[in-house]
Amino acid sequence: MTKHPTLKRSTLGTINIDPLQRGGILTPEARQALVEWGDGYSVCDFCPGKLEDIKKPPIHDFVYRDLPEFLGTDHARVTNGAREGIFAVMHALSKKGGSVVLDGNAHYTSFVAAERAGLDISLVPVSDRPEYRIDPEGYRDVLEEKSGEEVVLAVLTYPDGSYGNIVDAKKVSSICSEYDVPLLLNGAYSVGRMPVAAKDLGADFIVGSGHKSMAASGPVGVLGISEPYHDLLLRRSRYNKNKEIELLGCTARGATIMTLIASFPRVLERVAEWGREVEKARWFASEMERLGMIQMGDKPHNHDLIFFEAPILYEISKHAKKGRFFLYKELKKRNIHGIKSGLTKYFKLSTYGLPEDDLRYVLDAFDEIISTTR
Amino acid sequence: MTKHPTLKRSTLGTINIDPLQRGGILTPEARQALVEWGDGYSVCDFCPGKLEDIKKPPIHDFVYRDLPEFLGTDHARVTNGAREGIFAVMHALSKKGGSVVLDGNAHYTSFVAAERAGLDISLVPVSDRPEYRIDPEGYRDVLEEKSGEEVVLAVLTYPDGSYGNIVDAKKVSSICSEYDVPLLLNGAYSVGRMPVAAKDLGADFIVGSGHKSMAASGPVGVLGISEPYHDLLLRRSRYNKNKEIELLGCTARGATIMTLIASFPRVLERVAEWGREVEKARWFASEMERLGMIQMGDKPHNHDLIFFEAPILYEISKHAKKGRFFLYKELKKRNIHGIKSGLTKYFKLSTYGLPEDDLRYVLDAFDEIISTTR
Repeated sequence: MTKHPTLKRSTLGTINIDPLQRGGILTPEARQALVEWGDGYSVCDFCPGKLEDIKKPPIHDFVYRDLPEFLGTDHARVTNGAREGIFAVMHALSKKGGSVVLDGNAHYTSFVAAERAGLDISLVPVSDRPEYRIDPEGYRDVLEEKSGEEVVLAVLTYPDGSYGNIVDAKKVSSICSEYDVPLLLNGAYSVGRMPVAAKDLGADFIVGSGHKSMAASGPVGVLGISEPYHDLLLRRSRYNKNKEIELLGCTARGATIMTLIASFPRVLERVAEWGREVEKARWFASEMERLGMIQMGDKPHNHDLIFFEAPILYEISKHAKKGRFFLYKELKKRNIHGIKSGLTKYFKLSTYGLPEDDLRYVLDAFDEIISTTR
Repeated sequence: MTKHPTLKRSTLGTINIDPLQRGGILTPEARQALVEWGDGYSVCDFCPGKLEDIKKPPIHDFVYRDLPEFLGTDHARVTNGAREGIFAVMHALSKKGGSVVLDGNAHYTSFVAAERAGLDISLVPVSDRPEYRIDPEGYRDVLEEKSGEEVVLAVLTYPDGSYGNIVDAKKVSSICSEYDVPLLLNGAYSVGRMPVAAKDLGADFIVGSGHKSMAASGPVGVLGISEPYHDLLLRRSRYNKNKEIELLGCTARGATIMTLIASFPRVLERVAEWGREVEKARWFASEMERLGMIQMGDKPHNHDLIFFEAPILYEISKHAKKGRFFLYKELKKRNIHGIKSGLTKYFKLSTYGLPEDDLRYVLDAFDEIISTTR
């Protein structure tokens, strides 16, 4: 049927600027935890009947003490990922004929989660190029229009995964609360990178992604829940009082949760250094603009995920030997990975956690590629 | 907030007879894959937009070619675990006022999945001690009783996780098909241990557990789907044609799927050796009986998961120094782990994959514990 496949990862050792991946690179502590807890159901050695109640390893303290404090929520759980958290919330809140309001920059998983939960979708519009901005007042317009209908949840992608735009979440939450609609922040690109506390922003729920932004091995995520929604979201099984229905009993039951816990102290440290990350991102974006590319989205930029329009590279691609694949190949030659193969005119990248020397190296590579292939 | 926690696993190096864990111990190949693909979203380096379509690493071939052949189904997907597969099926089939039929030995996750999917539950009764048997005709009785109502799915736990009993699945499926009710096999304790092909057994769905029985790092599972249910279960998003709604787009997006793939060739080999595993389990059970314990469930036994009644140990616990914890402590002294702390009268264990010498050692330990503590 099949031979032992070759399972080497060819991109190890490259400078990886893929926004999906920069925040998920394991810490040394997580690498150790991965090896220590790699076997199947390893975390269940001393399970008293509920994942969150396991004290050895210290899942109990992480879930009940550290995580709610970190997320700024009353309660928290570890999930199989941000999308699984979004779905759990939507599914618990779902009603016949209900709908959700999503920002127009929402990640595809918010759409899919709503579809799976049987909810209609209304979109808060996005402004045109170059900002692709979400105006918080857009939530008011949509909620006003939907008044009388059952809007069960609003979602704000914070920041979004295309442009790295950060919307004024406080304004959004205060508008949503006027309409009695709970707000969920999708923090897949913020929780674990930048300071974000759901309570301070007025959000009722927040999700984060372990593999995207918390230096954990995937798939794993976090979910913060405010007190008023505790009982609904975490209701217990009639057949087994230990088990929370919406989480199917236990979620990240393996090495994934252990890498999340192992990296957590370092994640706290790096979140405190967020200011430097924003500075680096801004500097990098301005240097890219000097080379002829145009940064889209918030300006000055407030996040490491940066979207560029690159007419100069697009022009080159028209007569380059490898056509639209030239950029990928040229970067690959220089040991840089993370811009999707075939893209030239528009692409995104992340500067997160990269030393300035590496970013300088990437900039020099773009400079060289432009001047030698043009 | 928190210090770097100590995340050592104290049970490494023991003889582990926990049924949850015997089938999930990583192969050397999976250990390598874990390290190679540990970082966050590592499998997404060359993603064309859908997890199953990734060719590098070879997820595509595994999901579209190897897995359906292995499970004996038309289609297959990798999930975040067996329970997530059960829920996906129940959720896709769910109807207002609908219900499911579960065997009375069903795992708690089948109950929780049904509750989450809003489905009522009817149970096929279990016979009394010592067999705890499910009679396939029990499905007929329940389906007959429910006739006129909307039974959307029947589930057979194959084998169950308490007694390791294997029910005649062919008989169950033929009864279910008389009533036009699809059948799901919960193969969390069979897929990856013993030969099991959904088609041969007449099942419409099958789920398996990577961390329980396929030598993979958790949480990860597999789901087999027969052709008639393909479109319903794997319907695509209206907003993103690449994404399957019921799977929220992508499921095991990280190291978990890579360990599953890495172990797969060895899993095929070990499944072919199942006969020897059954022999070992029977021999072990008979030796335990010689020491005064009584094996419950199918006899002769057909699986490595074995449930014992141990009145002899229970008697000792009544006046042992450590009370009901004496067995756990005595086994721990002898470097044996896997029987829950505090149990003496009833417990389960697994002989899966253990060399005869280790099993002999475990038997001698029980013998010694009984004779020295009595």
